[in-house]
Amino acid sequence: MQQNSKITYPASEKVFISGKIYPIKVAMRRIKQFDTIEIENGQRKVSPNPSITIYDTSGPFSDPTITIDLKKGLPRLRESWIKERADVEQLPEITSEYGRKRAADASLDALRFQHICLPYKAKSGKEITQMYYAKQGIITPEMEYVSIRENQMNEELGIESHITPEFVRQEVAAGRAIIPANINHPEAEPMIIGTNFLVKLNTNIGNSAMSSSIEEEVEKAVWSCKWGGDTLMDLSTGANIHETREWIIRNCPVPMGTVPIYQALEKVNGDVEALTWEIYKDTLIEQCEQGVDYFTIHAGVLQAHEPMLKNRLTGIVSRGGSILTKWCKTHKKENFLYTHFDEICDILKAYDVAVSLGDGMRPGSIHDANDALQFAELDVLGELTLKAWKHNVQVIIEGPGHVPMHKIRENMELQKKVCHEAPFYTLGPLTTDIAPGYDHITSAIGAAQIAWMGTAMICYVTPKEHLGLPNKEDVRNGVIAYKIAAHAADLAKGHPGAQVRDNALSKARYDFRWKDQFHLSLDPERALEYYKEGSHSDEGYCTMCGPNFCAMKLTRELSDCVNAPE
Amino acid sequence: MQQNSKITYPASEKVFISGKIYPIKVAMRRIKQFDTIEIENGQRKVSPNPSITIYDTSGPFSDPTITIDLKKGLPRLRESWIKERADVEQLPEITSEYGRKRAADASLDALRFQHICLPYKAKSGKEITQMYYAKQGIITPEMEYVSIRENQMNEELGIESHITPEFVRQEVAAGRAIIPANINHPEAEPMIIGTNFLVKLNTNIGNSAMSSSIEEEVEKAVWSCKWGGDTLMDLSTGANIHETREWIIRNCPVPMGTVPIYQALEKVNGDVEALTWEIYKDTLIEQCEQGVDYFTIHAGVLQAHEPMLKNRLTGIVSRGGSILTKWCKTHKKENFLYTHFDEICDILKAYDVAVSLGDGMRPGSIHDANDALQFAELDVLGELTLKAWKHNVQVIIEGPGHVPMHKIRENMELQKKVCHEAPFYTLGPLTTDIAPGYDHITSAIGAAQIAWMGTAMICYVTPKEHLGLPNKEDVRNGVIAYKIAAHAADLAKGHPGAQVRDNALSKARYDFRWKDQFHLSLDPERALEYYKEGSHSDEGYCTMCGPNFCAMKLTRELSDCVNAPE
Repeated sequence: MQQNSKITYPASEKVFISGKIYPIKVAMRRIKQFDTIEIENGQRKVSPNPSITIYDTSGPFSDPTITIDLKKGLPRLRESWIKERADVEQLPEITSEYGRKRAADASLDALRFQHICLPYKAKSGKEITQMYYAKQGIITPEMEYVSIRENQMNEELGIESHITPEFVRQEVAAGRAIIPANINHPEAEPMIIGTNFLVKLNTNIGNSAMSSSIEEEVEKAVWSCKWGGDTLMDLSTGANIHETREWIIRNCPVPMGTVPIYQALEKVNGDVEALTWEIYKDTLIEQCEQGVDYFTIHAGVLQAHEPMLKNRLTGIVSRGGSILTKWCKTHKKENFLYTHFDEICDILKAYDVAVSLGDGMRPGSIHDANDALQFAELDVLGELTLKAWKHNVQVIIEGPGHVPMHKIRENMELQKKVCHEAPFYTLGPLTTDIAPGYDHITSAIGAAQIAWMGTAMICYVTPKEHLGLPNKEDVRNGVIAYKIAAHAADLAKGHPGAQVRDNALSKARYDFRWKDQFHLSLDPERALEYYKEGSHSDEGYCTMCGPNFCAMKLTRELSDCVNAPE
Repeated sequence: MQQNSKITYPASEKVFISGKIYPIKVAMRRIKQFDTIEIENGQRKVSPNPSITIYDTSGPFSDPTITIDLKKGLPRLRESWIKERADVEQLPEITSEYGRKRAADASLDALRFQHICLPYKAKSGKEITQMYYAKQGIITPEMEYVSIRENQMNEELGIESHITPEFVRQEVAAGRAIIPANINHPEAEPMIIGTNFLVKLNTNIGNSAMSSSIEEEVEKAVWSCKWGGDTLMDLSTGANIHETREWIIRNCPVPMGTVPIYQALEKVNGDVEALTWEIYKDTLIEQCEQGVDYFTIHAGVLQAHEPMLKNRLTGIVSRGGSILTKWCKTHKKENFLYTHFDEICDILKAYDVAVSLGDGMRPGSIHDANDALQFAELDVLGELTLKAWKHNVQVIIEGPGHVPMHKIRENMELQKKVCHEAPFYTLGPLTTDIAPGYDHITSAIGAAQIAWMGTAMICYVTPKEHLGLPNKEDVRNGVIAYKIAAHAADLAKGHPGAQVRDNALSKARYDFRWKDQFHLSLDPERALEYYKEGSHSDEGYCTMCGPNFCAMKLTRELSDCVNAPE
């Protein structure tokens, strides 16, 4: 494993904004710009351009003052905040049976992360979730952190914004936003998921039974953060899931999610029939204590749903949905995640793990979009949302999948209504099924629209979707496609300050400040690579049009003001 | 140059559908599918899957019965139709001065296409445009051809559709659709551009002063048709534009457009001041007689517009717009394209060349979208539309550019109203400016939406936009991104039959018929390439999830029906 996997961005410096309520330091990235140089009436005129401060998901990996050692993990940023609340305790040993068994297994020593801390848990009788604090009127350091993080660009530009620490608190209290922040993942920088905040994007990594190593997965996690992934789901299903997860969490500066049923099924060697509530429960506790920030739980899949499958072209395409449907049918019993949902919440609230209510019945094709089965499950998710909120467990709702453009709005509006404004978290949706190999694009089209309509987080799709597991280049392409969708939605929603970076890049383009265009772009390396493939001139035009056909050059000449090379 | 650049598609056969009114044969592509094989109650059950007939832009290049010789050009499909109307005559010589000069220049012999035909032109006093025929109540072979081409999938499936030859005629007569079909480009297969038809996509090729050869440009044209480009614009601005164009047109199975002001400017060595109506006029005639099917003409750029530039961040980004603004300002005169617009129409109507009214004032950044200048020009385009229609010249209207999602609808609605429902033809729009290197994606997001709202044709953007000239791989990526946008819009508009291919591919996916998934996809080669990168099994699951986690496999098991490998 690479021991010093630092992230660098060109012309960028890591800056830290101080909190006003708490002594916190919020990490941001500041991009420096060159001056605009013009010749006006024979005189050289120099005008400076401001630095642009942007949201940064790369954590300590882009902090030059921190030495990264993946074997030791990242600094435990939030640990002191958590301890100061004095409502948690460090346990004397791991609670889960499985976790203890793995810890005792010497054959795993070579695989194991070396600096495991004992887990924290709420003291008996204490409530510790961000939602609980918010309802009590308490602004936490996490809330102030996200308010600064979302708002810095506006602050610097004097743009009026609604995003104050108190607004964050209100949104979390109302369930309209969540701050996924397991007390056992203090390495993660706080972030918020909600319709009134910047649109977030989730990336999926994870080995299947057939590929990948721990090293590769950690590297992919860091890679995803580099390009702008806001959260990360580890969907591993192979051997050593427990150990892989520990490595990823200890080195992950963003919240991490999992689908615990995957590991539960591994524990019974893939035999769906053998799954039990007890095995699942032990898995939840195991993962809560490792620091997973949110769980996808398919508690909305009911026995009553299975007969509705007959009208579908592509049945069930959610792994969790198919596992639980099979379990219900085999045992002729109701889904144990549904029947044990209160107990699940009791476990989650002791670590502040959020629940992402899975859409096990999401459509897997344009044909099946918005069918009765999909919306029947959504109703159940709405019911479970209220139940989780009673426990002060933070909730997001997962959504499709495959939806043609004209059926996207119905998804958003129904979700908002049925799920009481809990944040929506959608996979794409893909707007057509005919482009395998390009599903990052078929789905970015849908993701941009549903995010504009109010979806709080979009789950990326890579070009390999439906064809194979993504490699690093696929992850990069998927993340950038989704950063585009998320940002396009922020612009369309009129999120304060969202347009600052567009304007800066456009002005750099008009000024022929090529380097600034690259530095300000979502993927400076790619932009530079493509630029270099052409043979460019510094004379105020480029290969695309040649000297006589450059519209921007001609326009500049109109105002008797010719731009000189940098 | 490659002398036999055939196009092949896997599992596909070229089929020809006979006309009912005329003895025409409409080329389509038919994709064969494998049988579905299931084990039901221990019995092997085989169910056939129908072949899927799809729209085909590849022309004779995918016809195994035709030998392609780029030196001779494609078969002249429409020549007999045109002659039979007995309203055109073949000229004894080329009309344009420039064309004659180039023909007489022996130094160009090595570059020249060898089998140039003398041009056709309307007989004196005859009207020959598709719009004229349509208004007279005449259904032409071109109209029947496009009705079959748009409708074949529905015909085979018994889906009721509004697209009859008579409907095509009505749409063309009303100006709501155009069939770009210069009588001097009889090689092109008729196609229709209109909001009530399948969304079309245009690709741009063209060398600039600094790169590319004739061979490369012809190869790019064929390449664009292979992936699904419906029309092609040659934006060449370098030397030998005239000769390059002849090669492309003679080998181009789709309508071709140009921006004649580019060549006119070359003729005066890039000196905007030296441009005259006479030079432009000679260029129009030269290109009409070569067979260009539609011209972008920036006749809406007025003297009065230039002062409105002061509010813009990125000035003028249209090359034509900047050239004409500079011309107006230098000469203190009105744009000669505006003042001579009736004469322009008189020239175009004699060859049935359509006019694509250019948006010289389109915004070049999110900041400038939907500003007063943009819409001031749109008003002029509306006025010119009515003028062109008086001459029975077919019209489309060009649109932006860079537009955030929430401002897209205003563009479509205003254009529809102001331009009397003439088809809208937009470049993207890009929905954010911060992703150079990925502008095929930033713009496919916008293109899908504006096409859904009614835009008839979308002009592709490649990943190299703003950075350099596209190579073949960029063209492929741009075309596929736009095929996705166009098809997503067709689905959303409820275009009859659009969903057939999605359903077929989805069913193939559910059946684990991998090969059929590739064959039915927009880019079978890419899908197969990505699939092969994984190590797949034929046992009814794939690397993505592994055997225990395949949702589709589990769902199939629910119904006691296990799918066997092909």
